Amino acid sequence: MGGGRVQEKVSAMTYKSALIVGAGAGLSASLARAFAKEGMSVALAARAPDKLAKLAADIGARTFECDASQRYDVEALFKALDDDKRTPDVVVYNASYRTRGPLIDLDPAEVEKAIAITAFGAFLVAQAAVRRMLPNRHGAVFLTGASAGVKGYAQSAPFAMGKFALRGLAQSMARELSPQGIHVAHVVVDGGIRSARRQEAPDKPDSLLDPDAIAQSYVHLLHQPRNAWSWELEVRPWVENF
Amino acid sequence: MGGGRVQEKVSAMTYKSALIVGAGAGLSASLARAFAKEGMSVALAARAPDKLAKLAADIGARTFECDASQRYDVEALFKALDDDKRTPDVVVYNASYRTRGPLIDLDPAEVEKAIAITAFGAFLVAQAAVRRMLPNRHGAVFLTGASAGVKGYAQSAPFAMGKFALRGLAQSMARELSPQGIHVAHVVVDGGIRSARRQEAPDKPDSLLDPDAIAQSYVHLLHQPRNAWSWELEVRPWVENF
Amino acid sequence: MGGGRVQEKVSAMTYKSALIVGAGAGLSASLARAFAKEGMSVALAARAPDKLAKLAADIGARTFECDASQRYDVEALFKALDDDKRTPDVVVYNASYRTRGPLIDLDPAEVEKAIAITAFGAFLVAQAAVRRMLPNRHGAVFLTGASAGVKGYAQSAPFAMGKFALRGLAQSMARELSPQGIHVAHVVVDGGIRSARRQEAPDKPDSLLDPDAIAQSYVHLLHQPRNAWSWELEVRPWVENF
Amino acid sequence: MGGGRVQEKVSAMTYKSALIVGAGAGLSASLARAFAKEGMSVALAARAPDKLAKLAADIGARTFECDASQRYDVEALFKALDDDKRTPDVVVYNASYRTRGPLIDLDPAEVEKAIAITAFGAFLVAQAAVRRMLPNRHGAVFLTGASAGVKGYAQSAPFAMGKFALRGLAQSMARELSPQGIHVAHVVVDGGIRSARRQEAPDKPDSLLDPDAIAQSYVHLLHQPRNAWSWELEVRPWVENF
Repeated sequence: MGGGRVQEKVSAMTYKSALIVGAGAGLSASLARAFAKEGMSVALAARAPDKLAKLAADIGARTFECDASQRYDVEALFKALDDDKRTPDVVVYNASYRTRGPLIDLDPAEVEKAIAITAFGAFLVAQAAVRRMLPNRHGAVFLTGASAGVKGYAQSAPFAMGKFALRGLAQSMARELSPQGIHVAHVVVDGGIRSARRQEAPDKPDSLLDPDAIAQSYVHLLHQPRNAWSWELEVRPWVENF
Repeated sequence: MGGGRVQEKVSAMTYKSALIVGAGAGLSASLARAFAKEGMSVALAARAPDKLAKLAADIGARTFECDASQRYDVEALFKALDDDKRTPDVVVYNASYRTRGPLIDLDPAEVEKAIAITAFGAFLVAQAAVRRMLPNRHGAVFLTGASAGVKGYAQSAPFAMGKFALRGLAQSMARELSPQGIHVAHVVVDGGIRSARRQEAPDKPDSLLDPDAIAQSYVHLLHQPRNAWSWELEVRPWVENF
Repeated sequence: MGGGRVQEKVSAMTYKSALIVGAGAGLSASLARAFAKEGMSVALAARAPDKLAKLAADIGARTFECDASQRYDVEALFKALDDDKRTPDVVVYNASYRTRGPLIDLDPAEVEKAIAITAFGAFLVAQAAVRRMLPNRHGAVFLTGASAGVKGYAQSAPFAMGKFALRGLAQSMARELSPQGIHVAHVVVDGGIRSARRQEAPDKPDSLLDPDAIAQSYVHLLHQPRNAWSWELEVRPWVENF
Repeated sequence: MGGGRVQEKVSAMTYKSALIVGAGAGLSASLARAFAKEGMSVALAARAPDKLAKLAADIGARTFECDASQRYDVEALFKALDDDKRTPDVVVYNASYRTRGPLIDLDPAEVEKAIAITAFGAFLVAQAAVRRMLPNRHGAVFLTGASAGVKGYAQSAPFAMGKFALRGLAQSMARELSPQGIHVAHVVVDGGIRSARRQEAPDKPDSLLDPDAIAQSYVHLLHQPRNAWSWELEVRPWVENF
């Protein structure tokens, strides 16, 4: 052990190829790096994949353009992955969209978009993924939730609708697919995530989530053997109210 | 008291005009009759309002054609109610749509429809209603949920998504609007509802919900004074598993 | 109808005899008066029943001395009710005890007492009550909870333990006993209750729960037919955070 | 990497000394071995510590006799640990006791014991532990729960009361103590645990939880940095109904 770095004894991981949808500079980048370190090949899909070029180069990932709320985009994405021999056995859905404000001021088109990107896109991606996983009875689908998915906050109805729906999808999928060998999990991220643009106040250390730390909880889920799967996990800074 | 019929002592009710959206022969009809008995004027909106003619005649209700998932339908409905001096101070959203099956077999268009009718339509109707209620700081918006909104069942992802989203909407609205005088409630109907087509087995009395009994719980919510509001209530036959 | 007071149409109530345990000047008194108005005979049990003399005289109730956390007290109470032909078919458990403070400062004896009175006493009373109800497959046991039973607050571990345990008892009882004709319900009282000592600020109307209003929700539960029972209901002032 | 065994990259762990209360042959033994492998010194407390002799010898642990539901036993245990320079910065409470049956047949003394061992003992141990952790603003208290703590099952009221109370304690502690540097977590073990006496049917692989697998989730919690703590995690075999 020693050497300043303690390592968990974990069961050997059998996952080989990950797809991260809704990839950006924050949590998705950390997941991509963590999965690559685990030895997985990584694919990244986003509406604007250009911004992912450096990350992709760093870890040898491929990038794909995809609006996950669009059925044919999602079909094309998985077709491309199949053609590329990168059919994923791990899929993380990370995309979300929100709009806020008093209920009476919300733009219905924005509400529709919030539900479409946050929840319906997750369904499309999960369905395409599971179709490919079921023949092997092997795979993992992880959906990134938020505290908005377990508590509906005032002036945030669209995000509540999207994230509640996502949690309902995750729970239904877990009940249906776990006994078929697919690990479905919903990760409740409760708090702000540290980033280049969003830094902690010096007097409030660790008050923002480190995306690398969140990624380690996803990696832990991947290491769980099927006799001890978690379907839900929440991560939260020590000083966060809940 | 006497006369074989005991009556609850209740605070005088101040609601005058109810709108029931998603009206059909079951719960909506019972709500309509119960509200009319309370002295409220009643309006009924449905995609196919013709079937409501007899009910409407019985209780002096007006009927409206409306696809609640369509923004302009909902706007036209409320405009018509305003013009008719029937701007509602009670709105019940009862519409829902579901499709079932293994995740991989679901038709994405059907999933979209399930979310649109079950949850997005509720948002459209609630928004139009609350815009009219807020100036008076008075009104009630009740959303009809299902056990699918608190537990995601296997092979029922679309309904889970729709009903979870509806519950998220209700919770967000309750937190935002209760302090502004709008009573928002989510009623979890857990079990089958008795109807002409769906009768109980003779050896299983009261194993299906009587829609008149459910309606009495909605009426009770309307009688609650604002110092003791419920935001969620579930109803379930005595023999139902949960 | 008319006369300025609207009344709910309700199913005839079949309950005859109520016992309220943990009776004091607040919610219990309101329940006692409401139940008496419904035509039920009422018995009141408390550690210090003297304070109940006036209430008892007003509504023709009998009072009993009982520490509900003590097994033999509870047995004696039900024996006395049996002897008096007042075996209850409605029992409300209203007793609770709390102590607050940082975890490290709590007195273990006080924590034990909080659990004993808030939860264990509820078990003792419920068990004695259900033994008498089951032969008739008829009865109602209502347990008065608090928001502390669904959310564990900081510096309030003893109350969280007691009220969570009470909710666990209620849920287990509901699953076991509903199909045997016993209506079990857990009422989450979320907020302060108005009393002689605790009055609302003039600029915050209805910011405290009116105990008569809460009592009406218990009465509503008693009126529910068994095909549409609620097992949990919460009441909360419109301006209460949750 | 390589060598057939993939390892998670984790933050260096700063915990040094673990106490496991309610130690037996199952989960506690796995936790003890896993913690020892992480480099922690381990102490084991149980009502009958003799059975722990071999385990203790294997990993160099010390054993202590303690009935965790008894205040003075718990005080003596922590005094002995202090004297032995083994004041723990990680404490796992694993003790529980249950009795089952129809509500009316339960022995009140057994119900009291179920609550005392499952929940009150956890309070006593947590309080003694936290008193020692707070001056350093560093430590972890993990409470082992069960599905009975989130769902009250029929004919299992005592376990529901104990495990709900335990969850209430955990949630209250997490809210109070996380901002003071103590990681509090509640682990919901949902399913049977594999043991010498309890083996899986050959046609149902991985239908029982492997205690070593559960232990890895506890270890993962210990590796979480304070900016991304989980307060609750559940583990469940892939084929378990929930």
